[in-house]
Order: sequence, then C-alpha cells, then structure tokens
Amino acid sequence: MSNPIGLISMQVARPFTREHFPWFTTFKSLGYDFVELLVPEPGELDIAETRRALDDAGLSVVLAARVNLQRNLTGDEAAERQAGVDYLKYAADCAAELGAPIVGGPLYGNPLVFAGRPPAPVPEDLRRQRVEWCVEGLKVAAAHARGAGIALAVEPLNRFETDFLSTTRQAVDLIDLVGDPGIGLMLDTFHMHMEEADLAEAIRLAGPKTIHFQANENHRGFIGTGMTDWTSVVRALADIGYRGPISLEPFRRNDDRIGVPFAQWRPPHEDENQRLKDSAQMLRSLLAMGAHRR
Amino acid sequence: MSNPIGLISMQVARPFTREHFPWFTTFKSLGYDFVELLVPEPGELDIAETRRALDDAGLSVVLAARVNLQRNLTGDEAAERQAGVDYLKYAADCAAELGAPIVGGPLYGNPLVFAGRPPAPVPEDLRRQRVEWCVEGLKVAAAHARGAGIALAVEPLNRFETDFLSTTRQAVDLIDLVGDPGIGLMLDTFHMHMEEADLAEAIRLAGPKTIHFQANENHRGFIGTGMTDWTSVVRALADIGYRGPISLEPFRRNDDRIGVPFAQWRPPHEDENQRLKDSAQMLRSLLAMGAHRR
Repeated sequence: MSNPIGLISMQVARPFTREHFPWFTTFKSLGYDFVELLVPEPGELDIAETRRALDDAGLSVVLAARVNLQRNLTGDEAAERQAGVDYLKYAADCAAELGAPIVGGPLYGNPLVFAGRPPAPVPEDLRRQRVEWCVEGLKVAAAHARGAGIALAVEPLNRFETDFLSTTRQAVDLIDLVGDPGIGLMLDTFHMHMEEADLAEAIRLAGPKTIHFQANENHRGFIGTGMTDWTSVVRALADIGYRGPISLEPFRRNDDRIGVPFAQWRPPHEDENQRLKDSAQMLRSLLAMGAHRR
Repeated sequence: MSNPIGLISMQVARPFTREHFPWFTTFKSLGYDFVELLVPEPGELDIAETRRALDDAGLSVVLAARVNLQRNLTGDEAAERQAGVDYLKYAADCAAELGAPIVGGPLYGNPLVFAGRPPAPVPEDLRRQRVEWCVEGLKVAAAHARGAGIALAVEPLNRFETDFLSTTRQAVDLIDLVGDPGIGLMLDTFHMHMEEADLAEAIRLAGPKTIHFQANENHRGFIGTGMTDWTSVVRALADIGYRGPISLEPFRRNDDRIGVPFAQWRPPHEDENQRLKDSAQMLRSLLAMGAHRR
C-alpha cells in the first residue's frame, strides 16, 4: 500500500469554485489520488455537488482549514475563541459531508503576516493562557470531529505566519496536552525548512502522531527544484511507517521580476501540467525507494 | 588574507547602547574582527564615543540600516521616498564618522511582516513605478555614500519580510539598473534558504557584486546546528574570490515552549559565549578549507 498523493486546489485557482471542477479530472490524469480543498466558506461551494464531481473524477479529498483573527482558538477575546471552536466543528461537518477523512492546518489560530499582525513580545502568563485556551478548544473540536469520523491535523507554521506554533516539538507537546485520539499532526516541509534543525529528525519525533504531510520545496516551487533532501525525508517517513496522505503545493511561480510579491498568491501564468505530473511521479518513486530500504 | 568575521550587536542587546560597550572586548576575545551595529537613531549612541570604544577593543565595524514605512525608497508617497533617501545619506554619514566601510540591509524599503503589512497584489504599473523610484533613490544615496568613502550593500529579504526584493537574481538586476560603483550586494543565507533553488549557484550569480555576507542557519540558530550546507557555501565564496566581511546573527534562542514567538527578538537567557566562539572558529576553518580547494 502506498501513500495517497494529492495537490492543493489553489495550485490552479483561488477561490476554487464549481467552474473549476474540470480540474479534478486533470489532477487525476496527472497522477494525483486526492485534492486538498480549502474548507469552503458558507455558500462558496455546494458540498453535495462537489462530492459528485470528485466521485466522477475518481478523486479523494482532504480539507485545509482557514483561520483568521475573528475565529481564533488562541485569541484574546472569548468571542474569537468560541468562533474558532465553531469553525472547526463546521469544518469537520463539511469534511464528513464531502467524504474527506481529515481537516488539517494551523487550527490553533494566531496568524501573523497574513493577518497584517507584526511580531510582538508575549508575556509569560498570556503565553500560558493561550496554551490553555488552545488545548480546551481543540479538545472540544476533536471530540466533535471524532464523532463525525473526522481527524483533525495540527500544522506548525513558520515564525512569520504564526507566533503560536512553529516547530514539530511544540506540536507534539500540544497534541499530548489535548490527548484526544481524534487529533494528530500535519507536517509541511516548507515551514520545517525554516524552523527545524533536521527534517528527518523532526519527522521521527512526530512519529505515529503524523496523520497528514505536505511535501513542499524550501522556496515552494516544484519538488526537486530546490534544496530539500527528499531522500532523507522519504527515508524518515518510511522509518515511522507513515501511510497517510501527502499533498503538494508548488504554487511559487517562476517570475523573478523586481517587486513581484512572492508571499502573495498568484495564478499560474503558464501550463504547469507536465511539471505537476513529474512531481507526483518523482514523489511516488522516492517513496517506493524509501520503503525498499527497510 | 582572510575574510573578517563579525557578530551582530543584537546578539546581546537591543537597543545596543553605551552600557553595552564592554561587549566589544568580549566579541574580540571570542574571535570576532568586527561588530555589525544597527545604524543608530539620532541620540541613541554618541558616534565619537562609540568609535573610541571600538578602537579600544580593537574591533572594526559595519552598519546595518533600519528601514520602515516612513522612510521608504519604494513607498507610494513622495515624502516617504525622500525620507528614505535622507536616511541612507544619514546612515552613510554615520558610517564615515564611525569608520565603518559599509552600510548594508534592505535599503529599498517596503517592509512587510515587521511593519504589520500583509502581502497584497501589486499592479504591474505600480511595480514598475516602484522599481524606478528605488533606482532613482539608490543612485542619489550611492553617490552621496561614495563621496564619503562608504559602500551601500543591498540585501534581499525573504518573502515575508518584504514584497520588493527577495532573490539574488532580483538584487543583481537592481544593482545593474543603479549602475553606481558605490553600491553592491549583501547576501544572507537565512533569507536565501527560503528563496533560492541553490545557495552556491546564487552566490556565483552575485559574484563580484557581493560586498557583504551574513552566514546564518536556516532557523537562525548557531551555524552548524541546522541544515545549511556550509561546505558548499564557502566553496562558492572561494569561487567568486570573496574577501569581504562575513557576519553572524545566531539570535534564535533554544526555547521551544508552545506560544513563544520566534520572529520576535528575545535577549539571551543563557551564556552563549562558548557557542559564539565555536561559531567564529568553525566559519574560519571552513573558509580556510574552501580556499585550499582552488
């Protein structure tokens, strides 16, 4: 049995709506097993219709949660925290309706650069308080999700995207504190490249807590075009016996004009299909060799 | 002749003021040739007194510029751009008074996360306009600096810290557009780790335009504790014949409590002197071996 390989929907469009459903068939033909969709905002997608389109294309799906300062498990205001819990419940319900087994992402909240929030010192009692709020919120959300047959996957983000959870060490500790079998860890090698001392060591630390994985280059381009030591990554995944989904998000575009903002999402400006196909194939081949080593 | 090795002042204190001058002697004793000081805001440091303290310690100095949205060569308002030019002139004058040969940093402006500014799309005509503004401003500033015997070093920053200049390719193009012998390139391996396909290739692309270099780990910890391929870095530096200063900024602290903000500067919480000494020694040894290869 091999890991399902997926592609994030925003590789081709954002927002991703019904007119983009034909991409499902394309993704499948390029060698992808699943699509990673953003949790639809209410009214953005008809869930039943989306599920039919996925089924027609023979594609599975996982969901990526979108947090902000208004729905924020670690927010300073009770209303933000409650909205954060409600959103995770809503996301799990969407996932169940859609047939997605996992909702992943920075479920804990506290976005930084994408929320226009600069880094700031956090007093020690506020830090402790945030950890408590987060653990309480995730307990409620994980229990709800588990009831719907959905697992929640907590993803550490790099230091510029959040000030709450940036390393695998922190994420493992957080998941231990929540202590619900319905919650696990999601690793993204892009963020890990900025925060970890060693990718393979971090994967081994995460071990069986890992339930979702994103394989992204250091610069978010296509895998194999950057500095990531993929051999070492797949070896570590084999060591921990990881059989879960692996998705790709190579949406950095090759466009080095001065003044082009790299952190801002941009649509594709050229046909990327061959590179997407080769990426899935490369990852599959690497994983196969990584497994032989055992 | 070997590259001067330096340490950023905020390794130990921020703001760095006269009570921190005893650190100059410590830095020297730990094997550093120069300190990289932030360009002092007016009144922050007495320049003549600082120069005496540096001389007494036998330490050289380079300056790191601090831009913001109010002094911003690429800002949308003429007043911001003028303040940006005035600041660079001021910085060059400080450098001359202090005996620092170089003022480096993101001289072009447009800070992102540290200014609390989220990424946003940039229309093509605004992008072109920003490039023009930047080139004009740098021409004026570089001519002024050159008159004072000071070189300006433009540093690309990662996508979350600026939306104007993130790759070596962009920086080389910008410096070609400015076309003043008083302006060069500064590379920082921390930022390069997020934006380049290959560190060595990028260094070779920068070539003789490189006038300042910062050797930082992928996670900004002590060099040798992360994923950077230092052998490949020093080999590339030897290939381009780089003899300029190299500074270290290992101010990520080993503190993985959940909720500790990694992008926020924090003072040291333990004695780092041995690691600072070993870092300078390791870099010196690597550089020596890199040079033998030729």
